[in-house]
Amino acid sequence: MKKLVKGNEAVVIGALVAGCDAYFGYPITPASEIAHACAEYFLKLGKIFIQAECETASINMVFGASAAGLRVMTASSGPGISLKQEGVSFIAGCELPIVIADIVRAGPGLGNIGPEQGDYNQVVKGGGHGNYRCIVLAPNSVAEMYELTIQAFELADKYRIPVYVLADATLGQMMEPIDIVEIPTGTVGKEWKLDATSATNDNLHTSIFLDYDDLEDLILRLAAKYRSIEDNEAMAEVYLAEDAELVLTGYGITSRLLRTVVDRMRTEGHKVGMVRPKTLWPFPKQAYFEHVNPNAGFLVVELSLGQFAEDVRLALPLRKVDLLYRVGGNVPTEEEIFARTMECLVGRMQNAE
Amino acid sequence: MKKLVKGNEAVVIGALVAGCDAYFGYPITPASEIAHACAEYFLKLGKIFIQAECETASINMVFGASAAGLRVMTASSGPGISLKQEGVSFIAGCELPIVIADIVRAGPGLGNIGPEQGDYNQVVKGGGHGNYRCIVLAPNSVAEMYELTIQAFELADKYRIPVYVLADATLGQMMEPIDIVEIPTGTVGKEWKLDATSATNDNLHTSIFLDYDDLEDLILRLAAKYRSIEDNEAMAEVYLAEDAELVLTGYGITSRLLRTVVDRMRTEGHKVGMVRPKTLWPFPKQAYFEHVNPNAGFLVVELSLGQFAEDVRLALPLRKVDLLYRVGGNVPTEEEIFARTMECLVGRMQNAE
Amino acid sequence: MKKLVKGNEAVVIGALVAGCDAYFGYPITPASEIAHACAEYFLKLGKIFIQAECETASINMVFGASAAGLRVMTASSGPGISLKQEGVSFIAGCELPIVIADIVRAGPGLGNIGPEQGDYNQVVKGGGHGNYRCIVLAPNSVAEMYELTIQAFELADKYRIPVYVLADATLGQMMEPIDIVEIPTGTVGKEWKLDATSATNDNLHTSIFLDYDDLEDLILRLAAKYRSIEDNEAMAEVYLAEDAELVLTGYGITSRLLRTVVDRMRTEGHKVGMVRPKTLWPFPKQAYFEHVNPNAGFLVVELSLGQFAEDVRLALPLRKVDLLYRVGGNVPTEEEIFARTMECLVGRMQNAE
Amino acid sequence: MKKLVKGNEAVVIGALVAGCDAYFGYPITPASEIAHACAEYFLKLGKIFIQAECETASINMVFGASAAGLRVMTASSGPGISLKQEGVSFIAGCELPIVIADIVRAGPGLGNIGPEQGDYNQVVKGGGHGNYRCIVLAPNSVAEMYELTIQAFELADKYRIPVYVLADATLGQMMEPIDIVEIPTGTVGKEWKLDATSATNDNLHTSIFLDYDDLEDLILRLAAKYRSIEDNEAMAEVYLAEDAELVLTGYGITSRLLRTVVDRMRTEGHKVGMVRPKTLWPFPKQAYFEHVNPNAGFLVVELSLGQFAEDVRLALPLRKVDLLYRVGGNVPTEEEIFARTMECLVGRMQNAE
Repeated sequence: MKKLVKGNEAVVIGALVAGCDAYFGYPITPASEIAHACAEYFLKLGKIFIQAECETASINMVFGASAAGLRVMTASSGPGISLKQEGVSFIAGCELPIVIADIVRAGPGLGNIGPEQGDYNQVVKGGGHGNYRCIVLAPNSVAEMYELTIQAFELADKYRIPVYVLADATLGQMMEPIDIVEIPTGTVGKEWKLDATSATNDNLHTSIFLDYDDLEDLILRLAAKYRSIEDNEAMAEVYLAEDAELVLTGYGITSRLLRTVVDRMRTEGHKVGMVRPKTLWPFPKQAYFEHVNPNAGFLVVELSLGQFAEDVRLALPLRKVDLLYRVGGNVPTEEEIFARTMECLVGRMQNAE
Repeated sequence: MKKLVKGNEAVVIGALVAGCDAYFGYPITPASEIAHACAEYFLKLGKIFIQAECETASINMVFGASAAGLRVMTASSGPGISLKQEGVSFIAGCELPIVIADIVRAGPGLGNIGPEQGDYNQVVKGGGHGNYRCIVLAPNSVAEMYELTIQAFELADKYRIPVYVLADATLGQMMEPIDIVEIPTGTVGKEWKLDATSATNDNLHTSIFLDYDDLEDLILRLAAKYRSIEDNEAMAEVYLAEDAELVLTGYGITSRLLRTVVDRMRTEGHKVGMVRPKTLWPFPKQAYFEHVNPNAGFLVVELSLGQFAEDVRLALPLRKVDLLYRVGGNVPTEEEIFARTMECLVGRMQNAE
Repeated sequence: MKKLVKGNEAVVIGALVAGCDAYFGYPITPASEIAHACAEYFLKLGKIFIQAECETASINMVFGASAAGLRVMTASSGPGISLKQEGVSFIAGCELPIVIADIVRAGPGLGNIGPEQGDYNQVVKGGGHGNYRCIVLAPNSVAEMYELTIQAFELADKYRIPVYVLADATLGQMMEPIDIVEIPTGTVGKEWKLDATSATNDNLHTSIFLDYDDLEDLILRLAAKYRSIEDNEAMAEVYLAEDAELVLTGYGITSRLLRTVVDRMRTEGHKVGMVRPKTLWPFPKQAYFEHVNPNAGFLVVELSLGQFAEDVRLALPLRKVDLLYRVGGNVPTEEEIFARTMECLVGRMQNAE
Repeated sequence: MKKLVKGNEAVVIGALVAGCDAYFGYPITPASEIAHACAEYFLKLGKIFIQAECETASINMVFGASAAGLRVMTASSGPGISLKQEGVSFIAGCELPIVIADIVRAGPGLGNIGPEQGDYNQVVKGGGHGNYRCIVLAPNSVAEMYELTIQAFELADKYRIPVYVLADATLGQMMEPIDIVEIPTGTVGKEWKLDATSATNDNLHTSIFLDYDDLEDLILRLAAKYRSIEDNEAMAEVYLAEDAELVLTGYGITSRLLRTVVDRMRTEGHKVGMVRPKTLWPFPKQAYFEHVNPNAGFLVVELSLGQFAEDVRLALPLRKVDLLYRVGGNVPTEEEIFARTMECLVGRMQNAE
């Protein structure tokens, strides 16, 4: 069934298609439509929707529901995501699967509801305490808001790990048609669940390990799991990069602009390509090498002060990596990106002489 | 006056010497002695001490007191630091000075109270939302717990920025003598304060900027401030690195072990040195080049899964950087570090052949 | 359908038969089985059950749900009922119908979970602020726990008023068969509801009236409503009182003992009867006159320090009213009541001489 | 020292003169000036002032501080007093001394900040759960706001009981001179305190008694204490009642009007007097008999729906008791009271014929 929906609604429909059983959250623009849509759809389908008393309550409800074996999600934006960080660390430490949509607003503090990518470090490097990781998916269309949310639930269960769907107000408000498949009924069986039945009594979920060796064992097991995710789950889109002199790289909403610029550059005869991570963690390092001209320069375009560029530089220690950013809700115009791209190309030629 | 104190108490005495007016916090091991000492000392000196109802309350009390022109601090450990992240982002967005002591426990989740460095990404890369930075100081002795806390208040006021003092249970419990100078009376005057007097009525502190350009202006001003801090405030200790074949690098409690290993290596005729960051942000990149053998290899030793190593690698994109870690409350023994150091040295020789 | 149930469960079944749509509460012994049974039955029937984060939250959820037109209830015991008093006053001021089961524990403070009637003043005279009244029903059997709960919902809707069902641990735990009629589906239509549809937009529910005359109008309207309730809804059981020399009076669990004593007294030839209020507010004053010997003396038996006796004395200003009480979870034995009854009878005879 | 102050400020000065050590509260009109004045005076004098996060927190802070041996108070109005009822019951059950100022607003619910006496039942009959009592003092002038607050602390300590000072917005805002005596320094010694020193380790304060007999012992001890208070602490002002045909009775702000009416009546040759309770619990029953014409009729004037009249009727079961009330913030005018008084006098004459 085709339906024209906003990105935020697409997340909710994706959750339903993925068999999500419960939503707990506290509304905050520009993520509020997710709560609104859940309130409407979840209750109609006999699923659980609770608007919690606060962000910390909502992440702990998510925590409990996940431990009880439900597929469960929450959504928020910057300030709310910050308040959830203790919970996320606990959930990661208990190896429980949850999905969090972060519809990023401009920050820090209250900021405004304009598009930004300033939560990158928080969700990718770990806003909470201790050694843990979350998978971070970065859609750049309404279709991907839908598809990557479905995938988020699969990855969360496969690895028993928190998974973020990271978007922004523009993607959340944008309307595009999505192709809705059937919504399953019933709950996915999870043999590790702890749901107040005697059969599950021994399924303890804890993050407290008073013995140092026990905790180290857990963390090393986590580390091995994280390596496995890095080896198997990184995703990126590589576009016209094989012969590119310059590769533009960005994720989410900016990647739509980059592609437009690449096309225009190509029309004008400039060898420009693009690498777009679809997973921010695991960071798709390989995508910057395969089908990419080994001599290319890179221009990072992001809506934050170089947070994403740091990971690009870590992936490409030997390459020149330039950076263009706008922040505060502002997005670089196609002209700005085009001009900066030309500048980088000219700089390369001059260096080459 | 010389006094033999625990590291956690040294933080409190440092705060008093720095003219700290108020402490708001919620107790959590292994940071609790900070609250206990504040309860005792602050009230006796007519200063403000409140055990708040929760971590989120305490960071918001700190927020308000800072806006009112007080020198103010809080302290916590992992889970509590996570809960404070929303507040920290708001405070950074309002450009207000505060000091936070994070006596790191082993995580993620509840973990245990053993020493770890798993909060590195949280405090250094930004656990909260949006584009902001906090200065992070990393003492490795009781004397530095004291001195760097004093410096934390100076830096916080100089740049109007949150400053972390990052330590762990071992440093917090360790006893060493410190040299206490006079505790000042009165409050440091701050012309930007907003303290319910008509004279300060116009001193608005806010992080909400509905106009995108206004918020971008703030963030660019923050970015310029952050560059200035990177240029001027990075601190590190470089030890016997000028001729070193291998440079050990680590911070906080691990650096004490590294120095022991360096001394032993030197005794045995091996050219091994150390670089120890005293500021984690700004990261002291220069320290890895000045007075350091340009051909040296590096061995990072940390109590986390390579969080610190990432910054070392960003600083040294062209060098070989090895990593040794223990986690969960465990600390590598001198023998482990020694053995791994020898391994790296042997590896270098074989590669050189 | 006959079913053998505990009193607490009977309350829940009564609520369902009355068409209750939603339950919000926070568990506390000896009322916890009500929450447990609601959790089980309500969710199965597609009704709303939420264990709120605290008592104040639960009464405010009840408040909102009632305003939205749902039939709604909560349950608690002493400390929880106290915490709800602000909400109850607000709900009464908004003239909204709710049902509250108070399974009284022994107090004050934490006390214990033994049977007591110490919440009498709180629920009958008004534990909250301002001029308002709640209807209070006092069952003395499992059947009445069931029937009076059904009636509580009817009265709540009829008068748009909070209605208490007042019982205690003994009644809550006692098992007796009840006769369950069909549970209706759908929600009772309420033309005054405010449920986020445009049709109900103008249905304002408020207790704030800044103009003194407006508030006085409300309170006088309330007063008239309360008089109407006093005139029409008082209920009592009068037993063998027409020729009684002495009338025992008590409510709830004590009335079961009183009836036993009356029967035994009659067997032994003593003219003793009983008046048992089934509504505590409105207080059934008339029941103390109709079918009651106008020269009878009265003996109040209660599980509180004369709280109930005060209302009996107000109803019978010209009569001798004695009082026997036990408190703290203790209940007077049949022997104690018998002995005291004899004492009163003997006293009457001596006075008559 | 004479000072012209508002009634609300007089409460605070009274508290200081009584040696109050600490204030915990949450502001609400029309009681807010009490918090404001405490914030100013208490901190200057090195005493404790905390604006708590909510009403329930503030009463529990009061609870703890009292247990620790401090003289402590809080203040609020209707909704806040309701939220404190759980705490008050716990404090009464632990037999701890506290003082609460209730500056009554018009209710129920939010109501408005006009004068009313609708909290009578709540504070006099017991808004909380279980068998307990609070002493209730009812000043009718700024001087009494001051003096009765001092007395409140004395009574609280003498009987280890919560004591209310019950006033309203008019008394709170009215300005009159008071005569301030010296403010003591130091804390009143209490041998039963539990203050974290080993000497007080065994001073347990609890309201939980799992054994029914133990709780009954407590409640009977409380009952004996309450009788002693009834016997010794009732206070009233009796004015020109010895020969009165009609006695007006009211408390607090209404009693000022009554006295004016009595004086005017006397000028016009009518034998009218007044009884004004200064304690609402214990209710000064005796005052209605001593120096009062035994044949007098009574007219109750109150700002509530007969809550106070009920206690008058309980005290005077054999007399005619009429009632005049206004509510919602409205106060009866002198003319209204005068007219109603005349009506009652005429009624008496007609009945006498």
